[in-house]
Amino acid sequence: MTYCVGIMLRQGLIMVADTRTNAGIDNISTYRKLHVLADAKDSFIVAASAGNLSVTQLVLGMLAEGLPSRDPDDGPRKVEHMPSMFQAAQLVGEAVMAAGAQLKPALHAAGVASGISLLLGGRIGGGPLKLFLIYDAGNFIECQPDSPFFQIGACQYGKPILDRAMNYDSTIDEAVKVALLSFDSTIRSDKSVGLPFDVMVFRNDPQLPIIKRRIEPDDAYMRNLSNRWSMLLNESRAAIPDPPFLSEDGDGVVELKSAG
Amino acid sequence: MTYCVGIMLRQGLIMVADTRTNAGIDNISTYRKLHVLADAKDSFIVAASAGNLSVTQLVLGMLAEGLPSRDPDDGPRKVEHMPSMFQAAQLVGEAVMAAGAQLKPALHAAGVASGISLLLGGRIGGGPLKLFLIYDAGNFIECQPDSPFFQIGACQYGKPILDRAMNYDSTIDEAVKVALLSFDSTIRSDKSVGLPFDVMVFRNDPQLPIIKRRIEPDDAYMRNLSNRWSMLLNESRAAIPDPPFLSEDGDGVVELKSAG
Repeated sequence: MTYCVGIMLRQGLIMVADTRTNAGIDNISTYRKLHVLADAKDSFIVAASAGNLSVTQLVLGMLAEGLPSRDPDDGPRKVEHMPSMFQAAQLVGEAVMAAGAQLKPALHAAGVASGISLLLGGRIGGGPLKLFLIYDAGNFIECQPDSPFFQIGACQYGKPILDRAMNYDSTIDEAVKVALLSFDSTIRSDKSVGLPFDVMVFRNDPQLPIIKRRIEPDDAYMRNLSNRWSMLLNESRAAIPDPPFLSEDGDGVVELKSAG
Repeated sequence: MTYCVGIMLRQGLIMVADTRTNAGIDNISTYRKLHVLADAKDSFIVAASAGNLSVTQLVLGMLAEGLPSRDPDDGPRKVEHMPSMFQAAQLVGEAVMAAGAQLKPALHAAGVASGISLLLGGRIGGGPLKLFLIYDAGNFIECQPDSPFFQIGACQYGKPILDRAMNYDSTIDEAVKVALLSFDSTIRSDKSVGLPFDVMVFRNDPQLPIIKRRIEPDDAYMRNLSNRWSMLLNESRAAIPDPPFLSEDGDGVVELKSAG
């Protein structure tokens, strides 16, 4: 399994991915899921991936070599040549479709799950930051301010904290912290997601450097965040009163009624 | 969708279920998912259900009428006649298999999801409280002190809080509170789960009454719990320092490294 989050804020774009891969529960390894697709002056595009690893690698390989052009005189079509993030997302979607067409019949016959999904984020030519979610069929949606994040992989454990805390006007600092809390909840409940985590932060100003950080299992900030969050949750739980209806007494079954 | 939790503590047994049912996102209604299967002197057995509503109702109908006996001179086999909770779970599992055999071919042909799962809890003849999770194939497992809760339905949103807070020696008061926090996280992130919630609490002493409570959308305790929990989570988030690696500066891409 996998867990990746992309967050599109007024201030910038954040991508976080775990690195745990498994082929069966007894075959776990560490594999980078945050991939750099283009790294050129004023253009930087990354993809976070979830799902079948061989299909993912086929997509990444196709994109690295470039997809064939309709006109044989043109060179192969690569992400870095696209004039906009929208066209980059279309190219990636096309690669997802092509990889699926090539591998899905055999995987389906073998009873192996073939689905993948991708978060595609970055900018082209110093243009605006964009974040897309690309589905297994190659179709995609763009992240909008009303729901400023996408998740792929084991989404549900870490969704409540994002739903509660994340909005388009959150600061980058706050959003990275909340994303790491979301990962902390996920790794406690799902052993198929694990450290290290890869974090990338793009600021709106294309002149500012992209921050890239691998958070290792012994990372002091992450350990502190996890311990403090546990302690604060315990204190918060203790601060909430017990349910009043448990102290009721009677000599039989209490009828259903509201405590309101 | 559905969300149900059963918690087996040293002090007793707790069952909580939501009541939202949908046949498509545009057809939502309220439907009780916590069903009383047996209510007799010293015996009280309930089942919480998730999954296809028609398969669930077929199972409940079969159990209410009783399953046929091998010897035609014997009457139909009913949950309340079983000598132990283990045999009650076997009978319910048998009904799940029979209902599946009857309905699954047609549902599969129609492309309708047919799966169900049940939490079966209670006691027979003043015996010990037991909690079972019955799967779609009719097989089942019993709850054990090492992992003192089962969930069915939309499990993942509300699992981190249970994983953090629940253990076999938790008090009933604390466990009901944590269960309701788990429901609060779930309904925020999944609109297919909703109030009212049905709560039942069985104490170890069979002489103590079973507490049954329907928590309505306007329930004062639940509203207070939800508001306070939101406020405490906000305060807790604010109390955690921001990630230190975001304040780094440079004139290019920072290399991947640990903040540890």
